[in-house]
Amino acid sequence: MQMPSLSPPSSSLVSLGGFAKPKPVALGGGILVKALYTPNKTTFNDPSDSKMAAATAPKWAQKTITLPPQRRGCHLVTPKILKEIGQDLSGFKCGLAHLFLQHTSASLTMNENYDSDVRDDTETFLNRIVPEGRSAPWRHTLEGPDDMPAHIKSSMFGCTLTIPITNGQLNMGTWQGIWLCEHRDAATPRNVVITLSGI
Amino acid sequence: MQMPSLSPPSSSLVSLGGFAKPKPVALGGGILVKALYTPNKTTFNDPSDSKMAAATAPKWAQKTITLPPQRRGCHLVTPKILKEIGQDLSGFKCGLAHLFLQHTSASLTMNENYDSDVRDDTETFLNRIVPEGRSAPWRHTLEGPDDMPAHIKSSMFGCTLTIPITNGQLNMGTWQGIWLCEHRDAATPRNVVITLSGI
Amino acid sequence: MQMPSLSPPSSSLVSLGGFAKPKPVALGGGILVKALYTPNKTTFNDPSDSKMAAATAPKWAQKTITLPPQRRGCHLVTPKILKEIGQDLSGFKCGLAHLFLQHTSASLTMNENYDSDVRDDTETFLNRIVPEGRSAPWRHTLEGPDDMPAHIKSSMFGCTLTIPITNGQLNMGTWQGIWLCEHRDAATPRNVVITLSGI
Repeated sequence: MQMPSLSPPSSSLVSLGGFAKPKPVALGGGILVKALYTPNKTTFNDPSDSKMAAATAPKWAQKTITLPPQRRGCHLVTPKILKEIGQDLSGFKCGLAHLFLQHTSASLTMNENYDSDVRDDTETFLNRIVPEGRSAPWRHTLEGPDDMPAHIKSSMFGCTLTIPITNGQLNMGTWQGIWLCEHRDAATPRNVVITLSGI
Repeated sequence: MQMPSLSPPSSSLVSLGGFAKPKPVALGGGILVKALYTPNKTTFNDPSDSKMAAATAPKWAQKTITLPPQRRGCHLVTPKILKEIGQDLSGFKCGLAHLFLQHTSASLTMNENYDSDVRDDTETFLNRIVPEGRSAPWRHTLEGPDDMPAHIKSSMFGCTLTIPITNGQLNMGTWQGIWLCEHRDAATPRNVVITLSGI
Repeated sequence: MQMPSLSPPSSSLVSLGGFAKPKPVALGGGILVKALYTPNKTTFNDPSDSKMAAATAPKWAQKTITLPPQRRGCHLVTPKILKEIGQDLSGFKCGLAHLFLQHTSASLTMNENYDSDVRDDTETFLNRIVPEGRSAPWRHTLEGPDDMPAHIKSSMFGCTLTIPITNGQLNMGTWQGIWLCEHRDAATPRNVVITLSGI
């Protein structure tokens, strides 16, 4: 389940190919600058130079994907997301990938990508923290005992994620992955609007 | 309170007008690509062609709005937000709307837009989960018993939201809405910096 | 610890210098428009005019910084972040700063920037809400009793923040600051990928 090829070791220098001038510099206060991307000033000053502008002109791409129904719980969906946007990502040297779940009873979060116990334990936590069933104080019960808890969990973890793109790939840490957390008992397909922007 | 006109049914194809080439394609793994926006390559290669560049040139807009004071609790503010940025949104075929609440004792979250009980139940949850008053262990009490709980709730739900823009509208799910959650007893105006970017 | 110079008082008009046309207008419903940035239409219509395009052409910058090891708890890191990106920010009249923590056992959140008790109380809350040690129900325990709680806290507060840039500065509220919350007992360096975009 781990995807070492996606993200460079967090301690290594992020390479930005011909576009980048990596500057590993130790600064005061213990901060280490690892990579810096500064677009060529000339590009902005001379957009009529089509060749250079082509290389760094900001661009946008957007698509909506539907993740298949999953049982209640936390699920690692990085491979599914990458299957959809991997090729699109390759066109961006530097940018952001924005994921937006169009639902209010599920959530998107970034967490551990290796041990499935972490996902199960997180589901255990969510069920402990948000009361469900007879003991729950909810007024909104018409859609089932798991519906109101699902709405609360959705706001706790959120329905949106923004991930940096570096050199054509999602620049996540070695152990990070994208989770879809399904908070309803009934599994349904879930839509995610993915927006890419960058250069 | 529902705004069906804002968001296409989540099961329908997202239309992107003359710019888009919607490609509903069923791929392996049960993923369904519903809409894809790919800027015309020619545009980037020839920015001196003003007409084409005008159509897809990335642009930015930003404004700060002040939401009127609201009582402690969760409030649906989508109509108020849209009243402010609806016209600005219409200039974007594809992009992102970023909302940033400039406060630490309130929060912005995305949740259900129809039944006000969901908002009330969420407020009930927040008050159960974060102790307040004599039984609370807080050291920060100078600004009132509701202040420290408000700070915690603000980090739980967050003060920022990023929503995709598609074809001039916020591309939320059918049941999604923007909530302002006021965590203080004393109602005060709340500032939101809204940044739009896209093409 | 307060940085009044970074953020204009939330009740004042946000000035955008020569680029902006601040429009303080009271609209119906109690909404007050405080500042509006609308790029000169001519710029988009005539990108071959290099001088104008240079002024407003969207640009991107990205760097990875490493924050030094911090003890378990919540820490105000705004000064450290600004030391790294302050100069880069000055090149943006309007934009977004995206911070992405490349770890799953720490978090980034926006909260109060003045009283350190608020950070300590927030740590107290997190430790109360997420069970740790013998009484905890976790299956993922191989990496220590504080590891699984750390993962949960990371998803509760999130690992990413997006902050508006206005007139070369982070446009936070007067009392807002960037917190790094370290959820592990063992202090380790933490990487943050910072992506700036705007005009």
